[in-house]
Amino acid sequence: MTSSQPPQSARPGSTPSRQNLDPHLDRYAARTAGMTASEIRALFAVASRPEVVSLAGGMPNLAALPLDSLSTQMAEVVAEDGLVALQYGSAQGVPTLREQICDVMAMEGISAHPDDVVVTVGSQMGLDMVTRLFCDPGDVVIAEGPSYVGALGSFAAYQANVVHVAMDDDGLVPDNLREALAAAKQRGQRVKCLYTIPNFHNPAGVTLAVDRRAEIVEICAEHDVLIIEDNPYGLLGFDGQTYPSLRSMAPENVVYLGSFSKTFASGLRVGWVLAPHAVREKLVLAAESATLCPPTLNQLVVSKYLETHDWKGQIKTFRENYRERRDAMLSALEQHLPAGCTWTQPEGGFYVWVTVPEGVDTKAMLPRAVTARVAYASGTGFYADGLGSRQMRLSYCYPTPERIREGVRRLAGVLESEMELMRTFGSVTTRTVSGPQFPGPDTA
Amino acid sequence: MTSSQPPQSARPGSTPSRQNLDPHLDRYAARTAGMTASEIRALFAVASRPEVVSLAGGMPNLAALPLDSLSTQMAEVVAEDGLVALQYGSAQGVPTLREQICDVMAMEGISAHPDDVVVTVGSQMGLDMVTRLFCDPGDVVIAEGPSYVGALGSFAAYQANVVHVAMDDDGLVPDNLREALAAAKQRGQRVKCLYTIPNFHNPAGVTLAVDRRAEIVEICAEHDVLIIEDNPYGLLGFDGQTYPSLRSMAPENVVYLGSFSKTFASGLRVGWVLAPHAVREKLVLAAESATLCPPTLNQLVVSKYLETHDWKGQIKTFRENYRERRDAMLSALEQHLPAGCTWTQPEGGFYVWVTVPEGVDTKAMLPRAVTARVAYASGTGFYADGLGSRQMRLSYCYPTPERIREGVRRLAGVLESEMELMRTFGSVTTRTVSGPQFPGPDTA
Repeated sequence: MTSSQPPQSARPGSTPSRQNLDPHLDRYAARTAGMTASEIRALFAVASRPEVVSLAGGMPNLAALPLDSLSTQMAEVVAEDGLVALQYGSAQGVPTLREQICDVMAMEGISAHPDDVVVTVGSQMGLDMVTRLFCDPGDVVIAEGPSYVGALGSFAAYQANVVHVAMDDDGLVPDNLREALAAAKQRGQRVKCLYTIPNFHNPAGVTLAVDRRAEIVEICAEHDVLIIEDNPYGLLGFDGQTYPSLRSMAPENVVYLGSFSKTFASGLRVGWVLAPHAVREKLVLAAESATLCPPTLNQLVVSKYLETHDWKGQIKTFRENYRERRDAMLSALEQHLPAGCTWTQPEGGFYVWVTVPEGVDTKAMLPRAVTARVAYASGTGFYADGLGSRQMRLSYCYPTPERIREGVRRLAGVLESEMELMRTFGSVTTRTVSGPQFPGPDTA
Repeated sequence: MTSSQPPQSARPGSTPSRQNLDPHLDRYAARTAGMTASEIRALFAVASRPEVVSLAGGMPNLAALPLDSLSTQMAEVVAEDGLVALQYGSAQGVPTLREQICDVMAMEGISAHPDDVVVTVGSQMGLDMVTRLFCDPGDVVIAEGPSYVGALGSFAAYQANVVHVAMDDDGLVPDNLREALAAAKQRGQRVKCLYTIPNFHNPAGVTLAVDRRAEIVEICAEHDVLIIEDNPYGLLGFDGQTYPSLRSMAPENVVYLGSFSKTFASGLRVGWVLAPHAVREKLVLAAESATLCPPTLNQLVVSKYLETHDWKGQIKTFRENYRERRDAMLSALEQHLPAGCTWTQPEGGFYVWVTVPEGVDTKAMLPRAVTARVAYASGTGFYADGLGSRQMRLSYCYPTPERIREGVRRLAGVLESEMELMRTFGSVTTRTVSGPQFPGPDTA
């Protein structure tokens, strides 16, 4: 019992080939058909070796946090308020924290009431709860293409159908949205929600242009479509710029998701939903059936941090940190990537979205990249419809600038070989593509 | 933004009567029909006033915890391991903690491998995940009657139908289970799971007799029914006694739910699922779509606590504490409750289940009890089928023995008046009964 064995090792009770011998196969709910493990998950074990530069993960750079004073604070929370911190709390979350969350949202121009905030176990839980409330099997959710892999996972778990709408450098294209809505109507499908990450998109790295925002809000109102606005990166604009939230334009038609994972600490799993008042009560009931209540300790820790630390200064530190890494990545891409590759220019957040020349399949190429000691997230995981084989997401949030440059250099080498092979033999591989997959939390 | 307003107060964006004016009414998923707020929720705000003795809650007595040394430990976790504690982790949970969880389960005779343990945000999340994996709308879950209100909430959220099977003082009655299975078969219903709390039942306070355990395991195997064994109280037997788990009798047909909420600290929200190996992988995928990963900090805190504290000694302290309170409650019930009332004799756990004389409706009586400064959880919340109007759950976990005695004295007075009225005017009220409801996390 003292060491973890690899999952495939033979031991009592295990089955050598689970796929075929699972005695529970006939018991699973229909929704489990949408729960698929990523084919690249196994590669991540390799990718986490120190010699591999991982540009695949979405882990924030916590080294910038003041761990010593956080440590002292944590002790204080338990010493002074332990009987509350370690006890059950309300399903909606600690009132003081919900007030502070309103102050955080005010930085992006959102005017909200603490009554309408529900604290969640990361905004992933927010996503899951909103989907639980609104999506019957077969309902359509429109999402940007590509979209956040965790959102696709939640939609799949509730058997919603995802329809992707293409972006350009200014984010979601309103005309594409109109077309998608018209097409769904023609197919007789009910579109329940638009799921969008307007700021510093994961994985695309683009930001929705300000003049498109009102238009998109209007289109959704016209078509009776609820907007799910996911905004984990909004305060991480490299010039300190923020953008008007969709929620501020249509408070009654937007469910807004926020998170402390990128502006403070992801391991605390504290996120929130700001919901229209009418939705809030159902949301609390859904959250209660999911986890009873979010961890009280974590809420008090975040609350104390917001109260006593210069959290705006900390966000500025994060921003400068990520800007330096973004710069390192963009200049390395410019310097090393072969002709025919294109990429987005993120002005905030964690990610660059790269398109490789036709014929290169990023998923097929990944094992060769890992062999060359660089990892990325291949594009198909970010689509529910099989697109993305010519794309990859590169993240600059976690490795140092030096490692980023080295990683891009290695990636360029792999791409060169891939293209060389292609010129010699034609397209390298033809792969069947697949839907949303979880490559693991480190790619969130 | 500095104070929380009562939910009913008028403010911009709020609707005076949400029920009728919710603009999202046509948008909710069908499953939300099963999400109902407890009618007694409003009473809980009153019940939490210091002058009211609450026998309604399920909050563990954390005053018995060594807060000072926990505070120091918390600081150490962040100072020494902050970059891990505050970062994303795996969806399955921290490996070291999963090994330690196996040691905890070994105390109840369970032999398990850390690979098959999935850490969850409290065992409520475990319940929710298992239901997600196994229950299609309309599937039948058999549960004891009464059953844990949080489980009924999860089953309702996935539109499963709950069929209750009556217990006696020795827990679930095997013959009743056989009859329920036969009846469901006759109705053409698919029974997916048996949900059971074998030890120190919530809310019934009874324990499944050892000689019934093998029989129940056998019945479920015969009928191809998966067992969900929920065991939060198993180590809280007042004489230090433990019972053989169903999981130990049928490792491949039992999904086992465990929790640190009652043996350590509920506010950390650390629970776990021990699943048959074939199920484990799907469970991890489900958990990933629900919360991405459980909070790393909380896992490291529990892990350090288990590693460095005398956690078995602490459980003994809890046990002695709860035994003293159980004794106080049972003797007060004996002394004060009017003739015609009966109750269970818990040998562990948190709860006594009281049956009042015919004609008394515990839900209708509750406002009068709260006026008399005592609160309890009325029985109907613990049934999905409307039973329970003559029952109530009294918990002795949180108040001091003195307060327990005073609470029971007050309750006896309320019951006397109720019965007096009944003798004068016949049955006090006829109430429509309703299904599973969440009275709030403090009744968990």
